[in-house]
Amino acid sequence: MKLLEDKIKRDGLILGDDILKVDSFITHQIDIELMKAIGQRLATVYTENKITKVVTIEASGIAPAIYAADFLHVPLVFAKKSKNVTLTDELLTTEVFSFTKKVTSTVSISHKYLSPEDNILIVDDFLANGQAASGLVDIIQQAQSNIAGVGIVIEKSFQDGRKLLQDKGLQVTALTRIGKFENRQINFLEADDAYLD
Amino acid sequence: MKLLEDKIKRDGLILGDDILKVDSFITHQIDIELMKAIGQRLATVYTENKITKVVTIEASGIAPAIYAADFLHVPLVFAKKSKNVTLTDELLTTEVFSFTKKVTSTVSISHKYLSPEDNILIVDDFLANGQAASGLVDIIQQAQSNIAGVGIVIEKSFQDGRKLLQDKGLQVTALTRIGKFENRQINFLEADDAYLD
Repeated sequence: MKLLEDKIKRDGLILGDDILKVDSFITHQIDIELMKAIGQRLATVYTENKITKVVTIEASGIAPAIYAADFLHVPLVFAKKSKNVTLTDELLTTEVFSFTKKVTSTVSISHKYLSPEDNILIVDDFLANGQAASGLVDIIQQAQSNIAGVGIVIEKSFQDGRKLLQDKGLQVTALTRIGKFENRQINFLEADDAYLD
Repeated sequence: MKLLEDKIKRDGLILGDDILKVDSFITHQIDIELMKAIGQRLATVYTENKITKVVTIEASGIAPAIYAADFLHVPLVFAKKSKNVTLTDELLTTEVFSFTKKVTSTVSISHKYLSPEDNILIVDDFLANGQAASGLVDIIQQAQSNIAGVGIVIEKSFQDGRKLLQDKGLQVTALTRIGKFENRQINFLEADDAYLD
């Protein structure tokens, strides 16, 4: 997605060797028009797939997932990272390790929001090691729902996440793919939605 | 907001004496069309206020806040509940106790996203004891931004949150106000946006 690549080049900050900060427009402050374009792009890729629900994980996956769900005209379900006294139903759970936050979280979705009739689009902001997305895949497969694909805003293609998901037979649609960081510049690979630019 | 009251009456679940579950359309699974109407309504109330940013707190505040920001054509900033290695800027922080989750969290916003020129609309899904909203007020006041008001999806009016905010001189706009639970039914008070129905 050219619009997003350009925005990352202009406003993304590179810290150290491999940390990209996009908190001025994606992960802390949200540029609404850009996020809408991101959701619309993901919806366009999956428009023929008869998606019934979009699934993401709190918190920074919610914004792109909302607009994907909006343009697909389906509900959004977001997985929770902590237990809550108001969430007492039968929960589907899995363990997710965050390399960024160095913590393992129990991630859960109420079973009643996923069924074998569902055809799910997973959406998340980053794909790096693939731990969060794999956790969502695990939960969704516990419910025997189908997974049409995984839509990602920014993929760190030098890490293992894509391979991990593809080895499970899943289609990954990354709107931007970072091949490597070099001299504080980003080398982008061709994105999965480049045919739509 | 009559549409929202009707939805709560139809699909909200009452647990025990005072817990309302709206996880089938607001806090876990999101009804996108309803959420869009909620955001639009909050934007309508504050349309003359020259809002520059919407501020909320992760995670379930993000959805209504996104659509409020969308209809106001301003960015959204969401406060974070945990520290993250990619969030290294000067942080404005406060402590928030959650009565629901029984934990105290350090909540933070990067100082660079709030300035004395900003005129903020705070948005959150629930107002009960007012701890989360008060934490946001504290952070925003540290940045010397102005607060135009606090937009709430569901207020538990039998708890102290509204008074706490009003005592700080803040305008509270609750789209639904729960006066009490009685025999597993909800008694609604007149909502702050009733004049728009």
